[in-house]
Amino acid sequence: MSHRLSGIAAQLYDGIKHAPILSPHGHCDAAWFASDQAFVDPAQLLVMPDHYVFRMLYSQGVPLEKLGLGGGDYDPRAVFQCFADHWHLFLGTPSRVWIEYVLYQTLGVDPLTPETAQQVYDQIAAKLATPAFRPRALYKRFGIEALATTDGALDDLADHRTSAAANWGGRIIPTFRPDALLDPTDKNFARNIEKLAQISGEDTGSFAGYLAGLRNRRAFFIKMGATATDHAIEVLHTEWVPKSEREALFQRVKAAPTPADCARFYGHMLIEMAQMSLEDGLVMQLHAGSRRNTNATILDRFGRDMGADMPVATDWVRGLEPLLSRVGNDPRLTLILFTLDEATYARELAPMAGHWPCLRLGPPWWFHDSAAGIARYFDSVVETAGYYNLAGFNDDTRAFMSIPARHDLWRRGVAAHLALMVNKRFFGIRDAEVLADQLTIGLARKTYRLEP
Amino acid sequence: MSHRLSGIAAQLYDGIKHAPILSPHGHCDAAWFASDQAFVDPAQLLVMPDHYVFRMLYSQGVPLEKLGLGGGDYDPRAVFQCFADHWHLFLGTPSRVWIEYVLYQTLGVDPLTPETAQQVYDQIAAKLATPAFRPRALYKRFGIEALATTDGALDDLADHRTSAAANWGGRIIPTFRPDALLDPTDKNFARNIEKLAQISGEDTGSFAGYLAGLRNRRAFFIKMGATATDHAIEVLHTEWVPKSEREALFQRVKAAPTPADCARFYGHMLIEMAQMSLEDGLVMQLHAGSRRNTNATILDRFGRDMGADMPVATDWVRGLEPLLSRVGNDPRLTLILFTLDEATYARELAPMAGHWPCLRLGPPWWFHDSAAGIARYFDSVVETAGYYNLAGFNDDTRAFMSIPARHDLWRRGVAAHLALMVNKRFFGIRDAEVLADQLTIGLARKTYRLEP
Amino acid sequence: MSHRLSGIAAQLYDGIKHAPILSPHGHCDAAWFASDQAFVDPAQLLVMPDHYVFRMLYSQGVPLEKLGLGGGDYDPRAVFQCFADHWHLFLGTPSRVWIEYVLYQTLGVDPLTPETAQQVYDQIAAKLATPAFRPRALYKRFGIEALATTDGALDDLADHRTSAAANWGGRIIPTFRPDALLDPTDKNFARNIEKLAQISGEDTGSFAGYLAGLRNRRAFFIKMGATATDHAIEVLHTEWVPKSEREALFQRVKAAPTPADCARFYGHMLIEMAQMSLEDGLVMQLHAGSRRNTNATILDRFGRDMGADMPVATDWVRGLEPLLSRVGNDPRLTLILFTLDEATYARELAPMAGHWPCLRLGPPWWFHDSAAGIARYFDSVVETAGYYNLAGFNDDTRAFMSIPARHDLWRRGVAAHLALMVNKRFFGIRDAEVLADQLTIGLARKTYRLEP
Repeated sequence: MSHRLSGIAAQLYDGIKHAPILSPHGHCDAAWFASDQAFVDPAQLLVMPDHYVFRMLYSQGVPLEKLGLGGGDYDPRAVFQCFADHWHLFLGTPSRVWIEYVLYQTLGVDPLTPETAQQVYDQIAAKLATPAFRPRALYKRFGIEALATTDGALDDLADHRTSAAANWGGRIIPTFRPDALLDPTDKNFARNIEKLAQISGEDTGSFAGYLAGLRNRRAFFIKMGATATDHAIEVLHTEWVPKSEREALFQRVKAAPTPADCARFYGHMLIEMAQMSLEDGLVMQLHAGSRRNTNATILDRFGRDMGADMPVATDWVRGLEPLLSRVGNDPRLTLILFTLDEATYARELAPMAGHWPCLRLGPPWWFHDSAAGIARYFDSVVETAGYYNLAGFNDDTRAFMSIPARHDLWRRGVAAHLALMVNKRFFGIRDAEVLADQLTIGLARKTYRLEP
Repeated sequence: MSHRLSGIAAQLYDGIKHAPILSPHGHCDAAWFASDQAFVDPAQLLVMPDHYVFRMLYSQGVPLEKLGLGGGDYDPRAVFQCFADHWHLFLGTPSRVWIEYVLYQTLGVDPLTPETAQQVYDQIAAKLATPAFRPRALYKRFGIEALATTDGALDDLADHRTSAAANWGGRIIPTFRPDALLDPTDKNFARNIEKLAQISGEDTGSFAGYLAGLRNRRAFFIKMGATATDHAIEVLHTEWVPKSEREALFQRVKAAPTPADCARFYGHMLIEMAQMSLEDGLVMQLHAGSRRNTNATILDRFGRDMGADMPVATDWVRGLEPLLSRVGNDPRLTLILFTLDEATYARELAPMAGHWPCLRLGPPWWFHDSAAGIARYFDSVVETAGYYNLAGFNDDTRAFMSIPARHDLWRRGVAAHLALMVNKRFFGIRDAEVLADQLTIGLARKTYRLEP
Repeated sequence: MSHRLSGIAAQLYDGIKHAPILSPHGHCDAAWFASDQAFVDPAQLLVMPDHYVFRMLYSQGVPLEKLGLGGGDYDPRAVFQCFADHWHLFLGTPSRVWIEYVLYQTLGVDPLTPETAQQVYDQIAAKLATPAFRPRALYKRFGIEALATTDGALDDLADHRTSAAANWGGRIIPTFRPDALLDPTDKNFARNIEKLAQISGEDTGSFAGYLAGLRNRRAFFIKMGATATDHAIEVLHTEWVPKSEREALFQRVKAAPTPADCARFYGHMLIEMAQMSLEDGLVMQLHAGSRRNTNATILDRFGRDMGADMPVATDWVRGLEPLLSRVGNDPRLTLILFTLDEATYARELAPMAGHWPCLRLGPPWWFHDSAAGIARYFDSVVETAGYYNLAGFNDDTRAFMSIPARHDLWRRGVAAHLALMVNKRFFGIRDAEVLADQLTIGLARKTYRLEP
């Protein structure tokens, strides 16, 4: 980067680095804010819940048991030492960038090396024992203006209620994630629909009652502060099943569905969800293209979300056509798309977002939420979708401590991208400053309907 | 970009910025040059015919009716004001770069803002009323040496004839686009084949007569100056249907074809077209991977080409293998490929163009005809295909006024790319200057057989 | 590149440019080192064996016969002149960079132009006649510490034996390539299995005897120095066929297999090969996604490997899942993946390598082994896979003279990438120096089990 270019980037970054943080999509636990208890230990803070971290260690031959995973007792000092011993594996990864930010900016500890691991452990543990490092205090110190969790549709949201009742000044809101009620391949699908009946008071034995039950839960989530739903699907498929077939299909998928039945049903229900969004205003999020649990051995021993989910190619154009052809022209709908297939950025997603009024593009997701990933994202989407069809940033993390680090990486990426554009004379510094602000927080507030 | 790098780029750009313009593929209307009437108003000049413009506005909630589309009366001042009010949406897009060039370089008007919209409107309208802004005058001022339109195979090319007869000094040539006669999914397919009989005098009731009719039309286009054909296909498929099956297949696709019949027939006809090119020398163009009219609501209300065509993934290697295995080694054939799937640049297209004598790669097409798109194109294709398997540039536009702007964006991209290569010591400035000239006009002249 | 950036790159390159060369995968001929005869002539040295070279010439209309290919007599001076006459076609390609290195650094001849071709020919011929340009002398001058060839499983490895017996100081090792015994679509498949019986002494009439024969050959290759196997597959498919079906499937694929049988059998055998690697420690290499011999005319006239192999899209996640679910968690296995589909770098390969203990990513392969290809590779894989899940570099060439040129291009790419990372503050210069050394030779030694 030339002097001129890095000068512009620095100027733009200075203007946004202290902006408030909005976290409209992620996987933090509302219980942290309900109870406000201290984090347990450095291993549980930085290593054990972070699938980016333990997947890398596992890929280099470290058994997951050595990282305290799989249940049972663990020695947090030994876990932390193991992590430090393999710290060089993370060179070049966003995980290293994030964790360095947490260690040196947020926690203010000494440089981490295999030799200093126990000393750094002690320093972190000492911090965690202070009131300043409790969840609510950190929330305020981080400058968060709202934080959305992701919650099963049957969740009673008790922790959200407790947190809100404590009136501590934070805004912790739920997100409606109904997949376990929509996707017949979920092994508890039929049981979940029975639970829906109990919780909603609707007779979910019929398709109409099932829809009523879902409406009931959406209304409850809205009452608890939700502004959005979230869906995940491996192979994107939407389909509007004719009315005459729905009841029979519903009964089949509860009993003995074929794979084709399952795909049709879930594909239909995504459209039903979009239609409910027209009525109740919940922003819809769609995460497509992650093949879950590809390592059966790890799944059996350690459960889900252990680093073995893998991206696959996604056909957004054909996959979403039935949904869009029903609801895509309706200005009441906002549908945010997240992909793991970067080949679709310029080929499909930017052209689609540059046409359909309902569509917004989510930020780089998961493996692509990195410096180069962010650069590729801007490079590929902006020229066709512009900036105003983007959904801004969300950190999508369950690692609460890393939230400022992740937003900081994004903000640096925004500044670097906009500086390039100014240097190429696409626009001047004034426009760049407005866009920097939009990409930092403005677009996320508007897209997720979370204006303060 | 460092000083050294931008210095080389500037030197290369200086050498090509005033080169003549060759426009060997595009969608201008020959009638403009036949009648040489003034453009109607600023809205019809810049907003209403440009699907890049109205698709972006539509994606942000502007109804197409507000842009004067859909037929009926419209208020050009209101349309232009609406466009100006949303001018910020185009930040970062090539549309903004092109339109700024048109406004400030070609038309020489004041900066466009929501506040200045009416004043700018007046300035444009005043220009359009002068003889210097009539089509023929602009053609000369733009330094165009030839401009190809795209014309249905049944077109009588009356406007081309009128323009040529006027002997005004411009070279407006047709391009043979026979898809409506080849693709059985065209809803007028059978009727078109009857028209072909009337126009060509051949009995198109038989497959042999149908081929003769097509040959007749190709000869007519050649007589009118055509040097190329053009084809579009969503899912690339070519197939050499055995002789014994052709007549029956031809009869079936005219009557009640299955989707498989349609794909086979069109796939076979692409090979027939390539074979006719061996005889008559027409350069063949193939645009693959655009899924047309994905928004049924817009199609019903506003018709085709309203911004809802979306790119899909394309398999060039398998899709083209049957065609290439019949004619690909014949030095008489030139076949230019255009893709909307950038993942195929390095994976398929560059390796194919670096082997088959007939193949040339078209420039970045449609959504990829942008600064970053051009950079990705060079980055992905040159190392395997070299420069001499590229077809040079074509603007592919129906926005006549923007032609210099589009060629200028390409020329800047050429200079930026070649400067990078010089900086990486791939070659020196002398070679770069030769390549700059080739990419600006030499390769296009040669590939399209349009040497002056 | 700014001054600072090019300064860091130069510093890193200086530290690795003279490092030893390890060539753990390639297609040199062991006979060269067994006989140590001089290379025949400049045409056979630089033009005729290099499919990168003759495919480009062919793509621009040069008949392969003019390049001395297709058997029979040829005039080496005419071939070399033809190559020089078209030297400009290679501007921007790695072939030109490699050959310039060979001409000017390795051979030290005058600049090549159409006019100087015969003089350069004489200069090269004179060099080749000297002892310093015999294979063994070049091996030592190039600083090669080991060089692996690729050999059919039925090969007697006589040349390797001769080379080793000569005790000349070089390490020429074979690689076990059994595809002709595993892939039923090989037209000599059944005959090869009979030969396996003769060579191994096992009764390959049964599936169990066939497996024993393969084990026997693996043991022989290991005795001859092999540390790795190699497999190529067009459409990646692995499948664990139930025990009860294997014998019947084996008998069918020897007699009259269906395409589905062939895919199942080869897919199963890839897993058997991985399981044998658990026992005998051979590193497994998998090259997927090359569609072979797409030009039937060229295949009939000139045979295989004539520049008409084309990359196709590859589904690594689903294709490899059955293999990985059986052996992927076993720390004894090393499986190196090579792709021609760059879209899978960030989407599939980096996430997979960042999880599975057995996986390592091969360097950019074939068409992607170029300056921009190397940059894209690092840009796409490092952030998710880190550096330590990469397999380092291998040149994969049959052009022995170009080996230093190819390693040099890679080392420049490594330095350029790491300088970018230092400039973006991912890590400091000390870490970059360690990584440069790893990427140059450390990772290749470790991955291929070729520590000196």
